[in-house]
Amino acid sequence: MNSDKPLHILKADHFDRPFLEYICKLTDHIRRLDKTKDGLMYLRGLLAHRRAMLYFTQPSTRTFLSFQSACQILGIATSEIRDSSTSSERKGESAEDSLRTFSSYVDLIIMRTPIPGFCDKIAASLDETPRPVPIINAGSGPDQHPTQAVLDIYTLMRSFRTSGGIDGKTFMMVGDLKRGRTIRSLSLLLSYFDDVKIIFSSPPLYRIDAALKDKLHRGKLKFVETADFEEVLPTADAIYMTRVQDEYDTVKGESAAIDSSKYHLNYEHLSLLKKDCVIMHPLPRRGELDQKIDSDPRAKYWRQERNGMWTRAALITKVLGVDEHILLPEL
Amino acid sequence: MNSDKPLHILKADHFDRPFLEYICKLTDHIRRLDKTKDGLMYLRGLLAHRRAMLYFTQPSTRTFLSFQSACQILGIATSEIRDSSTSSERKGESAEDSLRTFSSYVDLIIMRTPIPGFCDKIAASLDETPRPVPIINAGSGPDQHPTQAVLDIYTLMRSFRTSGGIDGKTFMMVGDLKRGRTIRSLSLLLSYFDDVKIIFSSPPLYRIDAALKDKLHRGKLKFVETADFEEVLPTADAIYMTRVQDEYDTVKGESAAIDSSKYHLNYEHLSLLKKDCVIMHPLPRRGELDQKIDSDPRAKYWRQERNGMWTRAALITKVLGVDEHILLPEL
Amino acid sequence: MNSDKPLHILKADHFDRPFLEYICKLTDHIRRLDKTKDGLMYLRGLLAHRRAMLYFTQPSTRTFLSFQSACQILGIATSEIRDSSTSSERKGESAEDSLRTFSSYVDLIIMRTPIPGFCDKIAASLDETPRPVPIINAGSGPDQHPTQAVLDIYTLMRSFRTSGGIDGKTFMMVGDLKRGRTIRSLSLLLSYFDDVKIIFSSPPLYRIDAALKDKLHRGKLKFVETADFEEVLPTADAIYMTRVQDEYDTVKGESAAIDSSKYHLNYEHLSLLKKDCVIMHPLPRRGELDQKIDSDPRAKYWRQERNGMWTRAALITKVLGVDEHILLPEL
Repeated sequence: MNSDKPLHILKADHFDRPFLEYICKLTDHIRRLDKTKDGLMYLRGLLAHRRAMLYFTQPSTRTFLSFQSACQILGIATSEIRDSSTSSERKGESAEDSLRTFSSYVDLIIMRTPIPGFCDKIAASLDETPRPVPIINAGSGPDQHPTQAVLDIYTLMRSFRTSGGIDGKTFMMVGDLKRGRTIRSLSLLLSYFDDVKIIFSSPPLYRIDAALKDKLHRGKLKFVETADFEEVLPTADAIYMTRVQDEYDTVKGESAAIDSSKYHLNYEHLSLLKKDCVIMHPLPRRGELDQKIDSDPRAKYWRQERNGMWTRAALITKVLGVDEHILLPEL
Repeated sequence: MNSDKPLHILKADHFDRPFLEYICKLTDHIRRLDKTKDGLMYLRGLLAHRRAMLYFTQPSTRTFLSFQSACQILGIATSEIRDSSTSSERKGESAEDSLRTFSSYVDLIIMRTPIPGFCDKIAASLDETPRPVPIINAGSGPDQHPTQAVLDIYTLMRSFRTSGGIDGKTFMMVGDLKRGRTIRSLSLLLSYFDDVKIIFSSPPLYRIDAALKDKLHRGKLKFVETADFEEVLPTADAIYMTRVQDEYDTVKGESAAIDSSKYHLNYEHLSLLKKDCVIMHPLPRRGELDQKIDSDPRAKYWRQERNGMWTRAALITKVLGVDEHILLPEL
Repeated sequence: MNSDKPLHILKADHFDRPFLEYICKLTDHIRRLDKTKDGLMYLRGLLAHRRAMLYFTQPSTRTFLSFQSACQILGIATSEIRDSSTSSERKGESAEDSLRTFSSYVDLIIMRTPIPGFCDKIAASLDETPRPVPIINAGSGPDQHPTQAVLDIYTLMRSFRTSGGIDGKTFMMVGDLKRGRTIRSLSLLLSYFDDVKIIFSSPPLYRIDAALKDKLHRGKLKFVETADFEEVLPTADAIYMTRVQDEYDTVKGESAAIDSSKYHLNYEHLSLLKKDCVIMHPLPRRGELDQKIDSDPRAKYWRQERNGMWTRAALITKVLGVDEHILLPEL
C-alpha cells in the first residue's frame, strides 16, 4: 500500500561493510558533538519533534537504558511498554493491532521480544499500512541482536584505529558460543573484513552451532575451534569473553554440569596477552572476567558499553533520516 | 479559597456544541502544524515549561499512550502513577492527601481510575487549596470517558466535512450498548446536532440502559432500538462498532452466554454499506470487526485512534490556556 | 584514578551552615525564575544536555516525584530503575557493575535504597573509574535522607524570614523520634545555628536514640526530652510532627502496642500555639496531624512538600556545576 517503506534494522545479516563504516563514522561525529554543551544541544534539537516507543516485552535493563539514552541524546520523546501482557492484549487484541496502535502515536518503534522473527513480522505488517514506522530490533530471543553487533564492530574499529583496522586481525571468542547470539552476529560481520581469523575457544559442549559454522564456511574468513584457552591467548589481537547463557537451559542444571572454569580470564593471564590486545565483553559478566582487569588499559568493555549508546544514536539518525545533519562540515 | 478555579474536563455532559466545534478547530490547526518540523517545534515549545501527571490507577495502555503522546507533542514533561497502591497510600495516606501531593509537583493531572466520581471529588478537593490544578478525566470506571467522546465527534466531523457535517445523519451503534460508556457519551453529544437519528443495534440483553434512554428522550435526537443488524446497515451514514465489555461481567460467563455473532461486521457486509459510510470502533477490537475491512476507504477507526492523540492535545492547550496560540494566523 | 572527583550528596552531616544558606539562596532564585514562562524556559535550558538516573530500589512515590520534577524543571532527561531485581542482577551481575553500567549512560545518579551505606559505597567505587558521576542520596533505609533535611531547613528559613531566622528559636519535635531519620538529620543541622533549643516530645519508647543524643551533647544546641505534649505547645516557634514508622517494626505489633494518641496535633490545639508558630510534617501523615489544620496560615507542610522540589533542583544545579547561572544578576 505504501511505496515509501521505512528503513528497518532487523538482522545483522542485512548490514554490509560500507553500512558499518558509515555508522561508525556517524558515531565518531556524535561523540565529537558530545564534547561541548553546544554540540549536545545541537544533537538534542535534531529529533526533538519525534517520538519513539521502547517496546521491551523481554526484560533487558541494560539495552533498554542504552536505547533510551540514545533517544534522549537526540531529543526524541519516548514512551514504553515493558510488560508482555498490556491491558489491550488482555482485552483480546491481536499483536498486530496492538503494535499498529502504538505505531500511530510514534515515529519509531524499538522492539525487544522473546519471540524470534516477531520484529520482522510486525515490520512487514506495518509496511502494508498507510503510515508505517521504522522498527529497530533490540534483541529477539536467542535469535538476533543487530545493534549489539554494530557496537562491537565500532569498538573494534576504534581500538584498532592506529593499528590498521579490523583487517588482518586474529579474534578469540570465548565461553558459551552455542547460545550467544552476540558471538553469532559479530562473527558474521567480521567476515566482511579481509584476512580475519577467529579462534573459537570453549568447552566442547558450548561450540558454535552448525548453522553458524555453515555460514562461516561459505565466507572468506578463517576460523578454528579449540578447547584450549591459555595456550591461545598470546595469539589474539582481540579477546571477546562471554557469559554462560543459562537462562536458555532447556534442562534444569544443564549449564551447571559443564565446567567452564578453564575459560575464565583472570588477572594472572594479562601477562600472556599481546601488549595492545583488546579485551571485550558484552556484559553483564560473572566470574569469567576478573574485575581486577578493569583498570588495565587493554580492558575495553566499559567503553564498549558506552559505545552502545552512541552507535544506537547513530543508527537512529540514519533510520529517521537526519544522519546527514550529523556530518555537516561546519560543526 | 481560590476564586480563580481551573477548567476541569470531567464529564462529556459538560460540553456543548460550540465547545466541541472549538476543540475540533484547534485539532485541525494542531494537525496542520504537525506537517512540518517548524510546526512541530512550535507545538513542542508551547508548554515546554509545564509538567503533567498521568495518574492511571486503572490499566489502559492505549489511553495512557495517547495522552502521553499528546503531552509530548506540546513539550509537557510527564510523570506517572500506574499502580493503585503507591507507597504513600500503603503508609496510610488518604487519597486526597496523595493527590494534593502529586498536584504540588505539576500543572495538570490526567486521571484514569476504576472509581466513578473520583475525578470530580479530587477536582473539588483541589479547588479548595491555594494551588489547584486542572483535572482531565481519562476514564472513570464504567462511568465517564469524556475525551473519547470528543475524539469520536472530531472523527465524524472530519469524515462528513464535504457532506454537510454531522447534522442530518443516521448513526448506527452496534454491540454491547449496555456497558459501553463510549456509546453513552457519544449519543449524548450527538444530541447537540440537528436532525440526527441513532439506530441502536444489539442483542436484547445488551440494549442501552434506562438512564441513557431517559436522557435521549428529553433531547431532540431520534433513536430506535433494534435486534436487526444486516437489515439496517444500508441506512447508516456511520456505523459505530463496539466490543463486548466482559471485564464488567458481574456473573462469571455472563457475556459468554449471549450470542453476539450476528452483530459482527464482516468483509462480506461492505457491499451493503453506503458508499461514503463511516466505519468506526473505539478499539481494541475482537471478532466484531473484520481485519479485512481495514484497507477499505470507509474504515476510519485507525484515523480515529490517531485523532485521539490530536484532540487530547487540543483539550490540553485549552485547559492550560494556550489554545489561542494554536490559532494564530501567521502560522 | 580520577583526580577531579564529583561532588556527592551523601549525608546531612557533610553540610555546614554556609552550604545550607547557599542552597537556600539558590532555591529562592529558582522560585523567582519559576514565576514567568521566560524564567521557566531559562531553567529548562540550563541542563537540557544532561541525563540523570533515578535509581529507586526502595519504594517512595513522593521523593521520586519530587526529584523527577526537579530534573524536569532543569531540562534534565531522566531514566529510572524502580525494581530491586533488575534483569542484569538476575543474570548474576554485581551491584558495582550494575551501577557502573547505569553511570555510563548518565551524568547524575539519584539513589534511594533500603541499604544503609550503599550510596557511599557506590560513590567511592565510581570515584575510582575514569568517568565518575555525582551521586545524590535520596534516602538510604533508616539511615540518611539528606535532601529532606535541606528542604526542612529551607522551609524554616523562609518561615522565619521576617522574624530573625532560625537563630534563637525553640523547636518541638513530636512522635516517633527513635526511628525517624528526618528528625535525626534536621536536629543535627539545627545545631549549626545559634541559641537553638529543641524539645523532643514523644512516648518514652519513641525517644531519640543514644547515637543522636551523643552527637547533640557534643554540639552547642540545647535540648530536652519530655513525655509532655500539650503543656509544651505554647513555647514552640516551630512544631515538627512525625508519623509512627511502623514499617520498621522488628516485632509484629510493636508500634500498635504503644499509645501515641496523646501526641496528635488537633484543630483544638491551635489556640495554644504562638501566633506565628510554624507547623511542619514530612508527610505522608495519618492521624497525628488533623486535616482541619490545613487551612490555618501556620500550617506550612504543603509548602514544605513543594519546597522539596525546589531545594532538590537547587542541589542538582550545584552538583552539576551550573549553580552560578542561577544567580546571574541580569535575571
